Amino acid sequence: MLYGRHSVEAALANPRRRLIKLWATQNALQRLEGKLPSGLAVELVAPHVLEQLAGSGSVHQGLVLEAQPLDSVLLEDVPAEGVVLVLDQVSDPHNFGAILRVAAAFGVHALITTERHGPGMTATLAKAASGGLEHVAVIRETNLARAIEAIKEKGFTVIGLDSEADNDLVTAPLQPPLALVLGAEGKGLRRLTRERCDLLARISLPGRIVSLNVSTAAAIALYIAQTARP
Amino acid sequence: MLYGRHSVEAALANPRRRLIKLWATQNALQRLEGKLPSGLAVELVAPHVLEQLAGSGSVHQGLVLEAQPLDSVLLEDVPAEGVVLVLDQVSDPHNFGAILRVAAAFGVHALITTERHGPGMTATLAKAASGGLEHVAVIRETNLARAIEAIKEKGFTVIGLDSEADNDLVTAPLQPPLALVLGAEGKGLRRLTRERCDLLARISLPGRIVSLNVSTAAAIALYIAQTARP
Repeated sequence: MLYGRHSVEAALANPRRRLIKLWATQNALQRLEGKLPSGLAVELVAPHVLEQLAGSGSVHQGLVLEAQPLDSVLLEDVPAEGVVLVLDQVSDPHNFGAILRVAAAFGVHALITTERHGPGMTATLAKAASGGLEHVAVIRETNLARAIEAIKEKGFTVIGLDSEADNDLVTAPLQPPLALVLGAEGKGLRRLTRERCDLLARISLPGRIVSLNVSTAAAIALYIAQTARP
Repeated sequence: MLYGRHSVEAALANPRRRLIKLWATQNALQRLEGKLPSGLAVELVAPHVLEQLAGSGSVHQGLVLEAQPLDSVLLEDVPAEGVVLVLDQVSDPHNFGAILRVAAAFGVHALITTERHGPGMTATLAKAASGGLEHVAVIRETNLARAIEAIKEKGFTVIGLDSEADNDLVTAPLQPPLALVLGAEGKGLRRLTRERCDLLARISLPGRIVSLNVSTAAAIALYIAQTARP
């Protein structure tokens, strides 16, 4: 179940997404004019029905969509180009969704994460991703250290973000193909993950609070990587 | 009432904060060793008491602090230096708190916002700010357009962020004193706010989703402004 305007519109526009049924208020349906694929089952409903479908308190914005989960993408299918993100046990669905949103904004094609200690691909996560789930392939790996080895063999430079690292990310080798590795807030990267990175680097901040939310850190790191590109 | 490790530790370390009483679990209190001001009333309690004090479901991390609100800062006391943020009707306490956290990380001293349609300085906001509330003065103005005029007279260049602006923020005049103006997600800047800005600028993004969360947009804008400084 997907809900919220951005999530639902992005899913409707995604040819890889198999759609089942849309529930919508009349107002929300009018705003979708021209965006509905032919053949989709649609039911006009009152807001309280959407609340029941999406969960109490959810900001559904008049739209709930039932759809199949996206086909999973394999690590070996990730092309050796651009930037990918690697998330080490980021389990909070709001943070994970916010990172997907940022990743989509920066044109990141793939996000590699841990099978365990990762969040489920829930409606809450999809809502926080604000459509990002449709544009970024999420690849779940049992063994993250081995997955990092695999992308290194493909030619990716792997940089782990660590607020206590000696290197400033700005001076790191950021030419694509590049993988940026982020850990959960508070916990950071696990030892085995850190050891597999080519380099650990920090984001330099001038202020008195040096800890950023993980999605904010991802955004700044992606911005730095983007501006470093030739 | 403040809760959560970062919020409470930052408040304890802030000489401008008048403290009333701390409730803590034994574990959390041990982690505060050496950080407790002398004379502060402390009560050791079980986690369920903290849940009652901080609100059900709150991530109190073993700490709840009762304190006086910080003394308000006046617009005329903001020095004409560095970067300030201006928020136009950002009402969501999570977003507002997240922006305070980002602002503190980038050494922003003041955040100017609207008296109406702004969030209350609640515990939820303080928790999202993760200590940022102690480092950034929040100035609430009845008339935001007039407040923008006032900081322009002080010498600030005022740049409004607008995803549809012609100018790229990277090419904008970003020398301090600089004020960056952000509107609420979806709504953007109000007409009167836009008209008072010296310039409107966008953050250029390469991906397929162009909308960022307002705290993420603030972070990238502050990063751009920081790197532009001589």
